Amino acid sequence: MTDDFAAAKDRLTDALHAVLESGSVRKATRMLNALHPAEISHLLQSLPPQERDIVWGMVDKAAEGEVLLYLNDDLRDELLSEMDASRILAAAEGLDTDDLADLVQDLPATITSQVLASLDEQRRERLETALGYPEDSAGGLMNTDTVSVRPEVTLDVVMRYLRRLKDGLPDITDNLLVVNREGRFLGVLYLTDLLTNDLDDSVAEVMTLDVQPMPASLSAREVAHRFEQLDLVSAPVIDDDGRVLGRITVDDVMDVIREEADHKFMGQAGLSETEDMFAPVLLSARRRALWLGVNLLTAFLAAWVIGLFEATIQQVVALAVLMPVVASMGGIAGTQTLTLAIRGIALGQLSIKNMRWLLAKEMAVAAINSAVWALVVAGVAWAWFGSVDIAVIIAVAISINLLAATFSGALLPLALERLGIDPALAGGVILTTVTDVVGFLAFLGLATLFLL
Amino acid sequence: MTDDFAAAKDRLTDALHAVLESGSVRKATRMLNALHPAEISHLLQSLPPQERDIVWGMVDKAAEGEVLLYLNDDLRDELLSEMDASRILAAAEGLDTDDLADLVQDLPATITSQVLASLDEQRRERLETALGYPEDSAGGLMNTDTVSVRPEVTLDVVMRYLRRLKDGLPDITDNLLVVNREGRFLGVLYLTDLLTNDLDDSVAEVMTLDVQPMPASLSAREVAHRFEQLDLVSAPVIDDDGRVLGRITVDDVMDVIREEADHKFMGQAGLSETEDMFAPVLLSARRRALWLGVNLLTAFLAAWVIGLFEATIQQVVALAVLMPVVASMGGIAGTQTLTLAIRGIALGQLSIKNMRWLLAKEMAVAAINSAVWALVVAGVAWAWFGSVDIAVIIAVAISINLLAATFSGALLPLALERLGIDPALAGGVILTTVTDVVGFLAFLGLATLFLL
Repeated sequence: MTDDFAAAKDRLTDALHAVLESGSVRKATRMLNALHPAEISHLLQSLPPQERDIVWGMVDKAAEGEVLLYLNDDLRDELLSEMDASRILAAAEGLDTDDLADLVQDLPATITSQVLASLDEQRRERLETALGYPEDSAGGLMNTDTVSVRPEVTLDVVMRYLRRLKDGLPDITDNLLVVNREGRFLGVLYLTDLLTNDLDDSVAEVMTLDVQPMPASLSAREVAHRFEQLDLVSAPVIDDDGRVLGRITVDDVMDVIREEADHKFMGQAGLSETEDMFAPVLLSARRRALWLGVNLLTAFLAAWVIGLFEATIQQVVALAVLMPVVASMGGIAGTQTLTLAIRGIALGQLSIKNMRWLLAKEMAVAAINSAVWALVVAGVAWAWFGSVDIAVIIAVAISINLLAATFSGALLPLALERLGIDPALAGGVILTTVTDVVGFLAFLGLATLFLL
Repeated sequence: MTDDFAAAKDRLTDALHAVLESGSVRKATRMLNALHPAEISHLLQSLPPQERDIVWGMVDKAAEGEVLLYLNDDLRDELLSEMDASRILAAAEGLDTDDLADLVQDLPATITSQVLASLDEQRRERLETALGYPEDSAGGLMNTDTVSVRPEVTLDVVMRYLRRLKDGLPDITDNLLVVNREGRFLGVLYLTDLLTNDLDDSVAEVMTLDVQPMPASLSAREVAHRFEQLDLVSAPVIDDDGRVLGRITVDDVMDVIREEADHKFMGQAGLSETEDMFAPVLLSARRRALWLGVNLLTAFLAAWVIGLFEATIQQVVALAVLMPVVASMGGIAGTQTLTLAIRGIALGQLSIKNMRWLLAKEMAVAAINSAVWALVVAGVAWAWFGSVDIAVIIAVAISINLLAATFSGALLPLALERLGIDPALAGGVILTTVTDVVGFLAFLGLATLFLL
C-alpha cells in the first residue's frame, strides 16, 4: 500500500475518525462531502458496518444517488433496503438514464413504479427502453443521451447548433452520431474532426464510416472486447432496423471489464463478484456454507475411493503417506491448463476450432512434466521407503493423473460453456474431483494389483 | 461462444483456411489486411504456431508495428526475435511515442539504439522521456502528444489554432491542457465546453479546475483506480514541478485493468499474465515445471506430517480414508478468505487500518461454518465407521483447520505485500501448505492421543 491514493484515503479515514471522536460531526460532514461520489463509495466499502452507517448518514442527500451507483451490489442493496420511498426518489433525481436503470433494477417493484411515476414523460420513456434490455447487454449498458446530426449540413451549422444546446453536451462525448431522416445510423462525426476541418465542409465529407454500431442485444462481454480492441471512447447502439437507440461510454465498459475479471477471480473460490468485504457475518456464513458443502461432497467421494482400498493401506501404510502427493500434483497441473483455457474463452481466443490444437499442446506439456516429476517423486519415495515397487507405482500413478488432469482441464471449460454452466465457478470443483478420484484410484489400485 | 464476434472470427478463420487451401494467397492477404490491427493480433493469438507464421507473413509491412503492439508479450517477443533490424525499424515508424516505448523495451539493446538513431530529434527526446519511467507508472503509460492552450486566450482563438494544426488532434482527445508560460498545469478545457460556450469567453472562464493531474511516478494500478472512479477519458501527467509531461488515455488504462486482472487470475495457477496459449511446448513445460516443483515441496511436507503418524494409521485405517476431507475443507475455507482479501487489497479497500475488523468478521464466519460442517462430517464419519471417537476427533480437527485456514487466509495477503511478495502468486501455495499441515497434524495428532 505505497500508493499515494491509498495513503491519502488512510489519512482521510484517520482524519474522519479523529473528527468524529472529537464530536465535530459538522466538520466531518464537510470533509466527506467535498469528496467525489466515487470516493465516498470507496470509503464506505472500506469501512466496517458501524462506522459505515455513521458515514452514510453524513452523505449529502443530493449525492446519495451517485454514491449508491458506485457501490457493489451487496452494499447497495443493503443501504437501499433501509431507505424509504421518498429518499430513494430524491436520490434518483439527478441520475443519467442508464445509471437510473441500474439502480431501479435493484428496487422492490412498488418503489420502481413510484420512481417511474415521478419522472417526466421523456425520461420515463428512456428509462423503460433501457429497462427492456438485460443488464449485461449493449442495450442494458447504453445511455439515451445521444446528440445526432444530419449528413447534409455543414460543420458551421453543427457548431451553431451545439452552442444553442441548453444543457451542453453529455459527459464523455467524443463524437456526434450522424443519422438519416429515419434515425438510421450512418456514421460518427468526431469532435476532433469537427474542430479541425473546414467549417464549410459538410458532415458527410468529414464523418467517419468505420465505427461499427453495436446491436442492442450484443453481450456486455463482446461490447468490452470491441472497446478494448478498437480503442473506443463511445459507441452507438442500434436496434434491428439500424435505428439509433443510444450510446455506450467507456466508463461503463471499464466497469464491465472490472466486474468480469472479478467474477473470474472470485468465482474460483465460489464467491460472487459483488461480495461485500464487510457483509454481515450471517449472510457471509450462509453463502460460504454452500461452497463448502459442494466441496465436501467431492471430498467424500475421494474418501470413498480411498475406502475401497482400506485393506491395501493397512498392509502398506506408506501408501497413505504418499497418496496426497499424487492427488495434489494432478490438481496443480490440471488447474494450470484450466486457467489457461478459461482465460482463452473469456478473451475469445479459444473456441471449438483451435481446441484440438490446444489439447495436443497441453498434453505434450503434461507428458514432459509427468515424466520429469514422476522420476523425482519416485526417487524421493524410493529413498524414503526403500521400496522400488512403491517408487515405480507412484511414478506411473502420477503420470496417469497428470495426463488425466490436463485432459480435463483443457476440455472442461468449453464443455461447461456449452452446457450453460459457468466454467469460472464450476471448473475448479469438477477438476479437483477428477484429480482426487483418478489420483487415489490409480495409486491405490496399482498398489493393490502389484504389491499384495 | 454464442457471441457474434466470436462467430464472425470463426467464419473469418474458416474463410482464411479455405482461401489458403485453395492456394489463393493474394485473396487471403487482402482479407486479412482489411482487418483492424487489433483484430489481426487477436487472430494471431488464436492460431496454432504453423498457421500463425503463415498469417504473420501476410500482414502488411506498414501495419506490423501496430499488430505487434496488441499482442501479448510472449508472442510479441517471439515474432520480434525473428525480425531483422530494418524490418523492426519499418514497423516502429508509424507508432505513437508511448506505444513505441512499449515496443522498444522488448528489443535487444543494439536494435534499440538503431531505432533511436532513426528518429528525428523531437521524437527521440519524447521517446527517451517515456523510457525514463517504469512501464507500470503514469510516466510509462503516458503519451507526449499533448495539445496545450493558455488561459488568457479566447475560445475563438483556440478554435482557429486547432483548425491550423496540420495533423489534426491526436486520437482520444477529450480536452486540451491549460498551462501557464512555464508549462505548469492549470486545468483542462473540455472539447465539449469549447463547443458549447461563447466564443468570446476566455479559456480561464470555461476551463475545468477539478481534474487532478497525475504525477509521473504514480503506479499504473492507482492510475487505473482514478480513471475508474472519476470516469476519466484522458488525464494529464506532470513532473515534480507541476510541468506537463504528457497525458494518459483511457485505452491504455483498459489494458492496465485487463492485465492486472489477468495477473491475479493467472497468478493463482502460477502462470504469467503474458502466457501465450500457443507457446512452444518446451517453453510452456519449463515454466509449468517450476510451479509443479514448488507445489511438490509442499505436498512432501504434508506427506512427512502424515508419515509421523504411520503407526496410528496402521491401527486405524479409517484415518487414512478421512484425512483428505479435513485438509480439503480447510483449503476451501481459507481460499475464500484469501481471495476476498487479495481483491480488497487490489481495489484499495483493505489496508492495515481495517484488517482487524475483517479478521474478526472472517473468524466469526469460520466459527459458524466450522460448527455446521464439523457436525455434518462427524455424522457421516460415525455412520460410515461406527465410531463415536473418530466422529468427535474429525469434528474437532475440522474446526481447528477451518479457523487456522481463515486466519492465514485473512492475514497472508497483507503480510506478503509488506514483504514485497506478490500475494496473487504465493498466497495459494502458502495457504495450502498451512491447511494440509494443520489438517493432518490436528486429525492424526488427536487420533494418536485419544484413540490408541
